Amino acid sequence: MEYLVMLPGPTNVPNRVMNAMLAPVINHRSEDFRVLYRSIIEKTQKLFQTQSDVILLSSSGTGAVESSVVNLIRKGDKVVIPVNGEFSTRLADLIDSWGGQSIRIESPYGENPSYDEFEEVFDEHKDIKALYVVYNETSTGTTIRYMDKLGDLCGRKNAFYIADSVSILGGDELPVDKWNIDICVTASQKAIAAPPGVSPISVSPKAKKYIQENPAPILYFNLKRYFKYYSEHFETPFTPALPLCYAYDEALNLIFEEGLENRIKRHRKCADAFYEGLGAMGLTPYAKPDARSNVVIAVNYLEGVDDKKFRDLLSNEFKVLVAGGFGNLKGRVFRIGSMGEVNKYHVVRTLSAIESAFRMMGIDVPSGSINKAISKLN
Amino acid sequence: MEYLVMLPGPTNVPNRVMNAMLAPVINHRSEDFRVLYRSIIEKTQKLFQTQSDVILLSSSGTGAVESSVVNLIRKGDKVVIPVNGEFSTRLADLIDSWGGQSIRIESPYGENPSYDEFEEVFDEHKDIKALYVVYNETSTGTTIRYMDKLGDLCGRKNAFYIADSVSILGGDELPVDKWNIDICVTASQKAIAAPPGVSPISVSPKAKKYIQENPAPILYFNLKRYFKYYSEHFETPFTPALPLCYAYDEALNLIFEEGLENRIKRHRKCADAFYEGLGAMGLTPYAKPDARSNVVIAVNYLEGVDDKKFRDLLSNEFKVLVAGGFGNLKGRVFRIGSMGEVNKYHVVRTLSAIESAFRMMGIDVPSGSINKAISKLN
Repeated sequence: MEYLVMLPGPTNVPNRVMNAMLAPVINHRSEDFRVLYRSIIEKTQKLFQTQSDVILLSSSGTGAVESSVVNLIRKGDKVVIPVNGEFSTRLADLIDSWGGQSIRIESPYGENPSYDEFEEVFDEHKDIKALYVVYNETSTGTTIRYMDKLGDLCGRKNAFYIADSVSILGGDELPVDKWNIDICVTASQKAIAAPPGVSPISVSPKAKKYIQENPAPILYFNLKRYFKYYSEHFETPFTPALPLCYAYDEALNLIFEEGLENRIKRHRKCADAFYEGLGAMGLTPYAKPDARSNVVIAVNYLEGVDDKKFRDLLSNEFKVLVAGGFGNLKGRVFRIGSMGEVNKYHVVRTLSAIESAFRMMGIDVPSGSINKAISKLN
Repeated sequence: MEYLVMLPGPTNVPNRVMNAMLAPVINHRSEDFRVLYRSIIEKTQKLFQTQSDVILLSSSGTGAVESSVVNLIRKGDKVVIPVNGEFSTRLADLIDSWGGQSIRIESPYGENPSYDEFEEVFDEHKDIKALYVVYNETSTGTTIRYMDKLGDLCGRKNAFYIADSVSILGGDELPVDKWNIDICVTASQKAIAAPPGVSPISVSPKAKKYIQENPAPILYFNLKRYFKYYSEHFETPFTPALPLCYAYDEALNLIFEEGLENRIKRHRKCADAFYEGLGAMGLTPYAKPDARSNVVIAVNYLEGVDDKKFRDLLSNEFKVLVAGGFGNLKGRVFRIGSMGEVNKYHVVRTLSAIESAFRMMGIDVPSGSINKAISKLN
């Protein structure tokens, strides 16, 4: 049974992308693979809007984010990181456990710090090695809207700028070079709409130089090895997850057939429609207005609604998958992934299922949400 | 165009396994996934012949091998490791770069050290933390045939025993518990005949206790997190490579439909047939007789044969893929993966293509290889 997958990753994967996985097995040390890998790299550079080196790791997004830490951060390095959700907390903890010294700019979940707080921290500490930012915090449905200014700041302060863009790249603005991002990380199964298991990462010349001169004590996520294998052979150092490479390549084809700008516009419209429709049902987003994500919609439960019962109804009766909350937010919010292939039908079917599920649970939400949502889609 | 994939991984993947990747996208935080993952874990335990905890990592085999190092080895730990090929060298280097102190039992490529050398090293050093063994060295086509005795030794000396079984598990004997192996690592795309990208690993209660009491400073390969997520939720801590999980599960089904014992016998017979047939052509295995692998056949080139030309002929004209040599062996050997689904047809077609390719290159190898090979298959 097929679900409508409105999760914040994995998302609905188009049939063309699924079927690409059935391409015959090839030798990953052969011209067959080199052709595929070069195609992937070139299209990924276009998607990232970067001239920098790009690598495709065979791991989830977490692995790719980790590679940005273990290759760049050394014992005692000061690392600034805004923390306001599950993923930014986990990243800050990783930086510390790896030996770095995180300087956390904390803000309440659902809100972002002001840009000025970053200026202040950089003024206070003269020796900041890097700024790590979770561009879209999947646990709370918040997006930081001054990524460009943070890039300028890092440029002025000579700090590396790393954007964890796992849940957003392909669904919102992200011109990597223009924003001065040194390392940008995403994953296949979010706004790119491929199956999970491969994760692209871009590395600026400045970050590449550092990584090559300071090799990391690890192997699988050792970016220096990936640079070497790519420049010498157009290959990956370790066996790639071949079917997922094919699928990812096809997903990139779909992105450029639609056009990146159109795709970002579509995501914005669908998000607007969700916020509008959910609002008409009397539901409120978890995120503050200026922090609301266009790819992950975190929604506060109405008083007394049981998370498991609600999501089981959606899944079992309507075949619509949405996610629950993480950590402290478990039971308090549900989250809609409005990403990848998301379209009018997805929005309408999801809102309709949510409305019906609430009614089945005896909660008489107002009507009209779907018309209001559709008004945002035209 | 489909190749006959006689690589030492990836191998030919049966259609049933390929098609399993097309299963609909599910939520990896739902009962749908838990059912799949429990099925995978239980079958993997059966395949490994272990009662220990098993984890499926979404990475290549290298990543899983690395997880055994970063979770178990700490600064200054003494680690014994036999080194006689590309993969054992790389593993020993990783142990050192991670902070361990490798004690290398070196032997010429193509040969194994004697068991007595291990006894001697353990007698000389009283504080050995672990013994790492590459059970099958893919770069040279050698297999260590006293893995059971090494397990006894580790038991007596209270050292952890880690078997890098990436290229052999499912194609040769490997009763993990009986052989006293603490951590056993393999990968999906070798003798298991699934696509590349997921890698199972077993961890004995003793190793698990150590890992839980000494958490590693990394995230994606942090086995403690995998134990926790499995015991609490039957889930993985990070998004798994879903299509590859489905494929791996189906590959395990095929293994047990055939029967593990039958499968190992089939691998032995096919290897015997390859050695016999290649010998009849006047070719010699790279590995010494007592070290020869049943899953990877490394073959010395005849004088004057150009590696690239030969393998290009095989690939372009006969659609048969074999691998070249690694590092120092580049141009000196070719390697046949005799693993996974390998059968009589694979052996015959591969030998026939090799014989024809040599003749096309003007090398008049003796006839009769195929009949001799077939005699070993009945």
